[in-house]
Amino acid sequence: MLPIMPETIHVPLSGNRFTITYALNASEEDAKLMAKGICFEQTVEFPEKHLPKGDIPDHIVGQIASFEKVGEHRFEVEISYAEEVTGYELTQLLNVIFGNVSIQPNVRVQRLGLSQNLLNAFSGPRFGRSGLRELVGVQSRALTCTALKPMGLSAANLARLAGAFAEGGIDLIKDDHGLADQPFSPWKERVRRCADAVREANAKSGRHSLYMPNITGPAEVVFEQAHEAKGFGAQGILIAPGLSGFDAVRTLSEDSDFALPIMSHPSFLGSFVTSPASGISHFALFGQLMRLIGVDASIFPNYGGRFSFSKDECRDIADGTVVEMGQLQPIFPTPGGGMTLDRIPELLELYGSDVVLLVGGGMFDNGGRILENSKKFLEAIAY
Amino acid sequence: MLPIMPETIHVPLSGNRFTITYALNASEEDAKLMAKGICFEQTVEFPEKHLPKGDIPDHIVGQIASFEKVGEHRFEVEISYAEEVTGYELTQLLNVIFGNVSIQPNVRVQRLGLSQNLLNAFSGPRFGRSGLRELVGVQSRALTCTALKPMGLSAANLARLAGAFAEGGIDLIKDDHGLADQPFSPWKERVRRCADAVREANAKSGRHSLYMPNITGPAEVVFEQAHEAKGFGAQGILIAPGLSGFDAVRTLSEDSDFALPIMSHPSFLGSFVTSPASGISHFALFGQLMRLIGVDASIFPNYGGRFSFSKDECRDIADGTVVEMGQLQPIFPTPGGGMTLDRIPELLELYGSDVVLLVGGGMFDNGGRILENSKKFLEAIAY
Repeated sequence: MLPIMPETIHVPLSGNRFTITYALNASEEDAKLMAKGICFEQTVEFPEKHLPKGDIPDHIVGQIASFEKVGEHRFEVEISYAEEVTGYELTQLLNVIFGNVSIQPNVRVQRLGLSQNLLNAFSGPRFGRSGLRELVGVQSRALTCTALKPMGLSAANLARLAGAFAEGGIDLIKDDHGLADQPFSPWKERVRRCADAVREANAKSGRHSLYMPNITGPAEVVFEQAHEAKGFGAQGILIAPGLSGFDAVRTLSEDSDFALPIMSHPSFLGSFVTSPASGISHFALFGQLMRLIGVDASIFPNYGGRFSFSKDECRDIADGTVVEMGQLQPIFPTPGGGMTLDRIPELLELYGSDVVLLVGGGMFDNGGRILENSKKFLEAIAY
Repeated sequence: MLPIMPETIHVPLSGNRFTITYALNASEEDAKLMAKGICFEQTVEFPEKHLPKGDIPDHIVGQIASFEKVGEHRFEVEISYAEEVTGYELTQLLNVIFGNVSIQPNVRVQRLGLSQNLLNAFSGPRFGRSGLRELVGVQSRALTCTALKPMGLSAANLARLAGAFAEGGIDLIKDDHGLADQPFSPWKERVRRCADAVREANAKSGRHSLYMPNITGPAEVVFEQAHEAKGFGAQGILIAPGLSGFDAVRTLSEDSDFALPIMSHPSFLGSFVTSPASGISHFALFGQLMRLIGVDASIFPNYGGRFSFSKDECRDIADGTVVEMGQLQPIFPTPGGGMTLDRIPELLELYGSDVVLLVGGGMFDNGGRILENSKKFLEAIAY
């Protein structure tokens, strides 16, 4: 039997290419082999010797656009891919960026260099920094955020908390990301009560605090759940792309009937950034990718809290929320995780005022005096 | 103002608990602190000193069920959680298992010890090993699997390949996981043509090869796409939980109108297993979790191919596909990734005959003689 594939394949391609920069931890010789390997692994996943001639090896296979030494035993390679291999869809774009190479150690995604044409396939953040500022009516200072917790409180108790935070003037009041649809605080009851409490407090104060419930519903009802939250009066949502899927977040952000701001939670995503040699950089994951899927505020664990991100990694994330990405708006870096009010001056120094500062458990210091603590939070921010 | 939370909280709980075993890389003193930290981090995420008394600290917070030294600077802690904290939903279960601790280095999920009541919330694999054997009409030998590739071929060429593989008697013919909805091979055309080709070959041979197209559609249409594939004559699907979301896979597996076997691809999941100190074990991720979401055959990169899994890690995965998990059926470990036909005896020795062996690019050796290579594959399996 003759070989079944044609000798030459002609594929209609635009010639537009985008780039992904990978860091490779290896000797120069190995790094060069790895770079070439990525070109094949992320596209044809096929032995070079068996490829038919023509457009497949010439254009479909990734191409090394640059290769440079950036440190001892560390190289950066920029690989360009034909836009068409992504099908202009997020799932396949993620697959091209990091699908199979995620399984190869010592390869790390550093930066996305998406082409304008590819970026045009995404709407990006519906609100971004300026849109979110408009919603809460805060023009220049940093925004304040807190979380309703602990898990185990009843919906009524969580609503009392939500009302108190709104009365205290906190801008964004989100569910803790562990609040789902649990028997001790059923989702519908919680969202309805908390939204009511925040609305009532806003009516009294004239402010515009937003209540953002956690969306964790099963895949078949997640969009319905988000719309239901809006129906109950929620003014935004919290969602974890690692749990609900990156594309579910993108879908919600592009849904013009939904049209509420989206805050992302890093739950289940930590393994991507655990190792400096593998995974995805803080910059690309919590900055660029969150913007690509339409997140307006990207939560990540701040340095010096209960987690292990360094100050530099946090700065990288902030850079990724604003780096040029065509028409995609800048979004808010949202550091949290064990933050206390006394650290606010230091955080403002690092992040500037284009930041959402998330203080959760720390709002219960001082005997749980929510109004007093909220006032302190706002004073610290204003300072 | 008085503290806003009641002094004592009573929460209605069944008393049923499940366990997750984590490996901790640290000194004994640090590991004990980390274990306690996980109990709080994965549930209330709240400072212990501020918790109201009663059921929240007594039952909602995780509990250390066992703690033991398993190696130098390595400990295993089994933590039990109240079933109710999961809301009996996958997204929140994943969040409890590894949500926030994914962001803490030196913590690794080793094993899931799900309670019967919690397992009852999941249907698990619809086919499993025995169901998939019935579909392909193969009672005892290992199953054969190959992939349609390379990306860049037209739908017509891919269909020629699919027909040849079916004629050659390959049991499972899947799309390469990089085939999405690209202009050079549009999804609908490809799935229709490939399904037709496999059906025609089956009609001639009397065999039951299954064509399993890759499902990568956007979140808002992914279920529709899977049903469409079935309408076109696909007899199973390939899907990557890391790209489409774990819960999307679970939803499909529980959809009784869909009711086709599901093969999972490890794309984008590699970072969970890159470090032996962090992430999720091979056993739990590619074995237990894939079963929990209803996968029937779990693809992973075999040792000695283009990837870096060790022989022991591959054996662990195989163990995870069959370990007791209540009513959840055993599924097929499906090693692949740079496999060649000459390695089959060695693989059968490791995995036994309850395995799906995936040979992709290797089927194009020997001048691309598909029929001849398929015959060799079957002979090697039979031996």
